[in-house]
Amino acid sequence: MTAEPLGKAASPSIIALLSGPDRTGLVARTGAWIWEKGGNILHASQHHDREADVFFQRLEWFPARGQDPEEEARAFHRFAASELSMQARVALSSDRPNIAIFVSKIEHCFHDIILRENAGELRGQIACIISNHDTLSTAADRYEIPFFHVPVSKDSKQKAEAEQLRILEEYEIELVLMARYMQILSGSFFQNFAHPVINIHHSFLPAFAGARPYYQAYQRGVKVIGATAHYATQDLDQGPIICQEIAHVNHRYGVPDLIQKGKDLERTAFAQAARLHLENRILVYNNKTVVFD
Amino acid sequence: MTAEPLGKAASPSIIALLSGPDRTGLVARTGAWIWEKGGNILHASQHHDREADVFFQRLEWFPARGQDPEEEARAFHRFAASELSMQARVALSSDRPNIAIFVSKIEHCFHDIILRENAGELRGQIACIISNHDTLSTAADRYEIPFFHVPVSKDSKQKAEAEQLRILEEYEIELVLMARYMQILSGSFFQNFAHPVINIHHSFLPAFAGARPYYQAYQRGVKVIGATAHYATQDLDQGPIICQEIAHVNHRYGVPDLIQKGKDLERTAFAQAARLHLENRILVYNNKTVVFD
Amino acid sequence: MTAEPLGKAASPSIIALLSGPDRTGLVARTGAWIWEKGGNILHASQHHDREADVFFQRLEWFPARGQDPEEEARAFHRFAASELSMQARVALSSDRPNIAIFVSKIEHCFHDIILRENAGELRGQIACIISNHDTLSTAADRYEIPFFHVPVSKDSKQKAEAEQLRILEEYEIELVLMARYMQILSGSFFQNFAHPVINIHHSFLPAFAGARPYYQAYQRGVKVIGATAHYATQDLDQGPIICQEIAHVNHRYGVPDLIQKGKDLERTAFAQAARLHLENRILVYNNKTVVFD
Amino acid sequence: MTAEPLGKAASPSIIALLSGPDRTGLVARTGAWIWEKGGNILHASQHHDREADVFFQRLEWFPARGQDPEEEARAFHRFAASELSMQARVALSSDRPNIAIFVSKIEHCFHDIILRENAGELRGQIACIISNHDTLSTAADRYEIPFFHVPVSKDSKQKAEAEQLRILEEYEIELVLMARYMQILSGSFFQNFAHPVINIHHSFLPAFAGARPYYQAYQRGVKVIGATAHYATQDLDQGPIICQEIAHVNHRYGVPDLIQKGKDLERTAFAQAARLHLENRILVYNNKTVVFD
Repeated sequence: MTAEPLGKAASPSIIALLSGPDRTGLVARTGAWIWEKGGNILHASQHHDREADVFFQRLEWFPARGQDPEEEARAFHRFAASELSMQARVALSSDRPNIAIFVSKIEHCFHDIILRENAGELRGQIACIISNHDTLSTAADRYEIPFFHVPVSKDSKQKAEAEQLRILEEYEIELVLMARYMQILSGSFFQNFAHPVINIHHSFLPAFAGARPYYQAYQRGVKVIGATAHYATQDLDQGPIICQEIAHVNHRYGVPDLIQKGKDLERTAFAQAARLHLENRILVYNNKTVVFD
Repeated sequence: MTAEPLGKAASPSIIALLSGPDRTGLVARTGAWIWEKGGNILHASQHHDREADVFFQRLEWFPARGQDPEEEARAFHRFAASELSMQARVALSSDRPNIAIFVSKIEHCFHDIILRENAGELRGQIACIISNHDTLSTAADRYEIPFFHVPVSKDSKQKAEAEQLRILEEYEIELVLMARYMQILSGSFFQNFAHPVINIHHSFLPAFAGARPYYQAYQRGVKVIGATAHYATQDLDQGPIICQEIAHVNHRYGVPDLIQKGKDLERTAFAQAARLHLENRILVYNNKTVVFD
Repeated sequence: MTAEPLGKAASPSIIALLSGPDRTGLVARTGAWIWEKGGNILHASQHHDREADVFFQRLEWFPARGQDPEEEARAFHRFAASELSMQARVALSSDRPNIAIFVSKIEHCFHDIILRENAGELRGQIACIISNHDTLSTAADRYEIPFFHVPVSKDSKQKAEAEQLRILEEYEIELVLMARYMQILSGSFFQNFAHPVINIHHSFLPAFAGARPYYQAYQRGVKVIGATAHYATQDLDQGPIICQEIAHVNHRYGVPDLIQKGKDLERTAFAQAARLHLENRILVYNNKTVVFD
Repeated sequence: MTAEPLGKAASPSIIALLSGPDRTGLVARTGAWIWEKGGNILHASQHHDREADVFFQRLEWFPARGQDPEEEARAFHRFAASELSMQARVALSSDRPNIAIFVSKIEHCFHDIILRENAGELRGQIACIISNHDTLSTAADRYEIPFFHVPVSKDSKQKAEAEQLRILEEYEIELVLMARYMQILSGSFFQNFAHPVINIHHSFLPAFAGARPYYQAYQRGVKVIGATAHYATQDLDQGPIICQEIAHVNHRYGVPDLIQKGKDLERTAFAQAARLHLENRILVYNNKTVVFD
């Protein structure tokens, strides 16, 4: 967590994401802690999953004038852990973690996410691109982002993942965005990379998991198609869903038409998921997400 | 096919649904046939499935003044079959086939479809209601529609279906609408009932087929829910999809909230499918639908 | 505010809607008040309009076992007004205020809202129906709801509104739902009726305010249509918007098709607005709404 | 109309857009003409506006083997004009007309449309970019598209438009896409440029025409926002609507949030309109569009 100077605000806000077993008084106690420090709450959302009996909260506040935000963030983290026994993630609104894009040859999500980053829509910076093909290296050069061609074959997968992990470490990556990366990451990869990975799948999961979802959709004759952004896990297309976009189609849509229409859904869902994650709006539990948007 | 006098128009239009192997000149030849008879084409839509190489057409036209619509409809049917070797279904816009509603206890689709029929939104008339429970008999009485309580248990299923088929025959039913009927109809039922059956399933199929789809959706943590109207077949939830409605949801939706939100989707998809079918806008092939809306 | 016994829960929850000038510590102080009384917060949402510098909060909590909910609700109201200088509305989740339906001849919203009330989807009870036509009196009888035919002409408007107000008072009405009531209520009506009135307008306001919106939409050739539920004021179609539903259309939609398609949007938006209001989820300011859904 | 060789197909298809007063036999006669020449109809859609009594048709067919598509296209045009007295536009599926982008500083639609053109999603080629600012010249260079900086002030407008028209002529432009170009084109411009101009407006017209629509939407407190792609005319925001995209919003959306959310709608509507136009799917009459999609 590194606080960088913000353009507009004198001081960044503090964002805390809390989760843990529900207990009486949690809303009051977090509110009181901030108030006593002279903080001013901007947003406070909570959710109580009654089935799992888990409490979730997202708090965003401005610390009192003169207070060091990083210090107060650390203090809140200690308070949440020790006095409330809650899991906590605390960040500053000025944080801009490093992002790596994983991509193959299909480029619409790749361009879209980079252009949004350039336009300042994402609270993070794209630090490098890793691809199993060389196709997009020229495009990456134009965007002036380091590009690494790491070919993957059945035999080389283990070695390739080691190389990927080395690059992620070198660039201090805290988020991987799989922009239509047509390879499955192994369990070993996820064990060795301590940060989240967001994938875009081109169907409304759980329908049409696996390969060629638009072809599957065409065969089944569905009247809606969709795209699903989710945290990737080693179980393909089974991770916690962050957001889904859908559109109506009809019998006139052949597979190429579904693919083209789907691109708009993929772009939107993918960028939305990246944005929500980077604004610290997502909590994960029981393979589901709580999204405080 | 019985032509009833229409309130507004002096003469009904003729609607033909054609399908068969694609051949050059089909559009020209059907158009020429109608033109030569002095007919005036209102709508003509076609679709060519290139993968299956099948041609589909929906034609709607007014016959020439003084021409008997029923006779011309029969003549077109002969022409399509003998000269074009096409399968054809021909109807008049004034047809109002008899409909049976199958329902259990859940009543939102039941009320909705009857109110729409009363309001003149459907080109058909609800002639009877068949239920495995007695719950909705009073409501049926209010609507002045004959209600048949046909209980179904594992042992009585065969006998119950025989009774259902007897009622369908007595009321000359040409369309069954399963308004959340919580029973599976057997292969034998479908063999003995020569007309279509439309079902509403409370998920965006193929996701969450089978029982308790909203509970399944909750468990998986999806961010969209849906409803699917489809032609029922003996393979549960596998029949040709007619239309699908979807809505965004979030983590705050518990199972009861999903159920309530889903009701709006079910009503709309169900009524839309019934309307499209009764306006002779749907062709089925390869377990898919072509919907000329 | 009368607490009726709930079917499922031993005790109702308390719901408070607060608004007022933003000040530091509001979240903490309301939370602390509830915690000190032993209450357990179910939901707490807040909103800060930075332009207007107004703070909004919706709190829902279970009072401590043995605590009288009505008494605690009154105590919270006093606390909010005197110590926080906030405007407050406090209700119990068991409240079921009386509703009056205003309707003319168009019946889809009328049936829909009554059926939803019957199904338990609304936290209120429809106590009477007032119409300027006799058309729906039989339907009202079937639903066993008192029906009042109050004809309105240019000359009789003042007298008619007096009669309407008398009925509303007799039935202790706390919410009027205008289910496509084709009359404008006067400024005098709104001054004399102290409770909210919700109207459904058949366009996506502010487009196509006034008469015949579907005809206007057809003339302009729009590709989306909509429906808007809003709090009615004496300025026709200018009141605070609660929710809006929209759907895509195309050139094949004539005015009757737009009307039919629009009915689904009207039903959904109207029922949604009624539900949100009755669950005490809406705050109004600057002719806009904050909806805590 | 210049037929370029297609990558995949040996021969392009012919596309005809017809409109004119409705008469009996039009569907038959166009179909017969194509059939007699040995053509094979791929798509045939028609529309009859009953209010205006105008007939519209889009025909797409493969000419017989050995037949020159350009010649047959010209022959069909003569047939439609002389024998059917219909207005006709005839094109080949291989046509790739030159496009000019007009843009100011806001860049999301600019990047999006160029990336789609690069990806082969549009049947046209972007030949030049004209801007009243220099902001996007570097980006244009990267895309290797000629960029012309034509500043516009109140006094220089006439001269600037003359320069724009000169560039459009030089590059043989047949379509102008206004990708958030923040200037109004004069009546004189439209008189001197014989080809269509498509504009993207950032609201669901007719709501919030004119300046700062997201600010207007915020002030009115709407619960949906939208974007409208339309043919530009000298009457600002009054031209025929091609397509509209909408999204739900709530009270938490400030003006910057509306702007960001709206960008996705603008991109999609703008690209969709360009695509539909370039595939010759749009007919204009009475300030409305018939879109055969």
